[in-house]
Amino acid sequence: MTTVDAFRTAWEPLLPIGTSADGGYARHGFTDAELACRDWFVRQAKARGMSVETDGNGNLWAWWGDPSAGDAVVTGSHLDSVPNGGAYDGPLGVVSAFLAVDALREQGFVPSRPLGVVAFCEEEGSRFGVACLGSRLLTGALPAERAATLTDPAGTTLVDAMSSAGFDTARLGADPALLGRIGCYVELHIEQGKGLADTGSPVGVGTGIWPHGRWRFDFTGTANHAGTTAMADRHDPMVSFAMTALAANKQARLHDARATFGRIAVRPNGTNAIPSAVTAWLDARAADPSTLESLLYELERQARDRVGRDGTALAVTPESVTPPVLFDEALARRLAASLGTPGAPLPMLATGAGHDAGILSDYGVPTAMLFVRNPTGVSHSPAETTDDADCLAGVRALTAALRELT
Amino acid sequence: MTTVDAFRTAWEPLLPIGTSADGGYARHGFTDAELACRDWFVRQAKARGMSVETDGNGNLWAWWGDPSAGDAVVTGSHLDSVPNGGAYDGPLGVVSAFLAVDALREQGFVPSRPLGVVAFCEEEGSRFGVACLGSRLLTGALPAERAATLTDPAGTTLVDAMSSAGFDTARLGADPALLGRIGCYVELHIEQGKGLADTGSPVGVGTGIWPHGRWRFDFTGTANHAGTTAMADRHDPMVSFAMTALAANKQARLHDARATFGRIAVRPNGTNAIPSAVTAWLDARAADPSTLESLLYELERQARDRVGRDGTALAVTPESVTPPVLFDEALARRLAASLGTPGAPLPMLATGAGHDAGILSDYGVPTAMLFVRNPTGVSHSPAETTDDADCLAGVRALTAALRELT
Repeated sequence: MTTVDAFRTAWEPLLPIGTSADGGYARHGFTDAELACRDWFVRQAKARGMSVETDGNGNLWAWWGDPSAGDAVVTGSHLDSVPNGGAYDGPLGVVSAFLAVDALREQGFVPSRPLGVVAFCEEEGSRFGVACLGSRLLTGALPAERAATLTDPAGTTLVDAMSSAGFDTARLGADPALLGRIGCYVELHIEQGKGLADTGSPVGVGTGIWPHGRWRFDFTGTANHAGTTAMADRHDPMVSFAMTALAANKQARLHDARATFGRIAVRPNGTNAIPSAVTAWLDARAADPSTLESLLYELERQARDRVGRDGTALAVTPESVTPPVLFDEALARRLAASLGTPGAPLPMLATGAGHDAGILSDYGVPTAMLFVRNPTGVSHSPAETTDDADCLAGVRALTAALRELT
Repeated sequence: MTTVDAFRTAWEPLLPIGTSADGGYARHGFTDAELACRDWFVRQAKARGMSVETDGNGNLWAWWGDPSAGDAVVTGSHLDSVPNGGAYDGPLGVVSAFLAVDALREQGFVPSRPLGVVAFCEEEGSRFGVACLGSRLLTGALPAERAATLTDPAGTTLVDAMSSAGFDTARLGADPALLGRIGCYVELHIEQGKGLADTGSPVGVGTGIWPHGRWRFDFTGTANHAGTTAMADRHDPMVSFAMTALAANKQARLHDARATFGRIAVRPNGTNAIPSAVTAWLDARAADPSTLESLLYELERQARDRVGRDGTALAVTPESVTPPVLFDEALARRLAASLGTPGAPLPMLATGAGHDAGILSDYGVPTAMLFVRNPTGVSHSPAETTDDADCLAGVRALTAALRELT
């Protein structure tokens, strides 16, 4: 039986790593903070007598049993964070995985298949702009040649960042042998919304991931002096962007979807200069692809209409568009039933957030997710939180799931 | 008679200095580019046998005659640029000043009062955030103690930047002795609008500077995951900002004024994160203080109304608010009449842009400005341009003005 003390003992060494000035975490791939998280992972694995390996894409694996036997049951999540992120998004799944191993051992359980704990690399994509970088490389969803062109905001390439941190980049790219060893994958994650808070259950089972994407909106206009240029003579891309941001918010409500402009770059970004260019990134998600398409169509139509009136220009570039993921339905139903109480299965819910589980599922790995209740729904923020009691319920559910699968 | 060749000979050595990647200029105070502009100034002065001094605030002075005699006629402008600025804003006034000295000498004119050419330091305020830094320090409009706290975006203090560039900072601050020597100041500047283009005259006389200011709008909300947070659960400061930017544009049109949000900072500025904070800087100007006040009042009212509906918060902080400047009216009328043709004085016009002339005028120096036609009105942009013929007309007008004043 996992205790609060056992949870805290595994959890607390992570807390001081990579704290950011704004009260959250900055643990981006191959930075000192992220390397310190990796050291924590290795210590946790070694303390449990598990073998540790880093694959060619920077993903960390700890094994109970011999992975070469294949058909492994793998659980885990990621250790990296968004800029100024919370403590739970990612690490909770990895901590819970190690505690589930402890619980299985306490129960005297001997797995019939190898059991792996994984920490995927750069899941948030905060440093190199590609979410689920480690699982995309492992599966081949992102070819190594394309990954080699990725750079961080300082201009450092992925390969240079990995090399500087002491990683061998010769094996970057798809690893069908390792992928083939994974018989199934279960990822536990803090819920990033209030779905469970509304149901009253501390744990739920994931059914899938909404289709989602990122589109770059490049608004261009004419730089000019803010004080001397008559309003009628302006071609101000900030105004075109502002209308588009309001339209995105309204269209998301009308489509029962989600649309956000959370990132923006302005040139020259001077107080007394009408900008020459405003680049803004749209994050949009919906329950199904046709709704997402309709949202984008209507938003782009309204943006182009405004751009025409402002005398500015607009280019819309999809940077990544991900189709919906449906997790293995039979597996999800089985887990919801067996982890719930008789007659009251765990709630099943889809999520708007991408996960490595979605990438593995796309590449044929039977995949399931467990969500732990988030009382405020806040995520990607220092205010992200959950209760210790719910964390323990998550570990118990994950333990039962692994026991059932191994 | 100033020729195109003479103009080009003085002008062209400046052109390669401080070019920026986007096709414009980056010549910010005490950077290598700005120091190279200063070297150009010194060479121009020495070639004319003028004595050169740098005052305690980094302003450069070249003298024809002995400045200690006092009651000097001073002309000039500035050499620094906004980020990615144009070639004319500033340098045209300094080049024209040297060419006017040449023209006066060609005419055999011997000034009855000392004649000075000045290049004020950091007029655009692009490095340390305070426009007209050099003239504000000289006059005492900005006390030395406050200037000592200014930093550039890299965190370098003004004092450190000056010291590193070899300037003595012991004399930073008001210099009443030097200010007292200035009998009058005439600044020639490219027009930053299309007022002259509409009148058909290559040169106009300034009547004053609109009241203007910068206000910082700090919108704060709740950081959250862009994909998983329902629209109804959001407190997104980007949406509050977007509505405020549209309101600023509309209110400026309704008030026959100018309002611009050209600079913005978003936290955490991640594609998949609803921002926790959006800071945006408003530049607003109007023909008179009550119109400017009414514009601000209405804009802030609408912004607060939206913030209330978005569940965000707003703090509005005036960063600098400058009352109107009225240049010496008798001097302006005299110059418009004497520099025009009989019965057709030069056009007289106010400007929305701040200038060192406005600071000197506030401190009791009889001040005039000459504007050179800008065919497109574009300013603070690499596309800023004017014709050689109009530049020569500017030099002729400045020569005549100096002749009349000395």
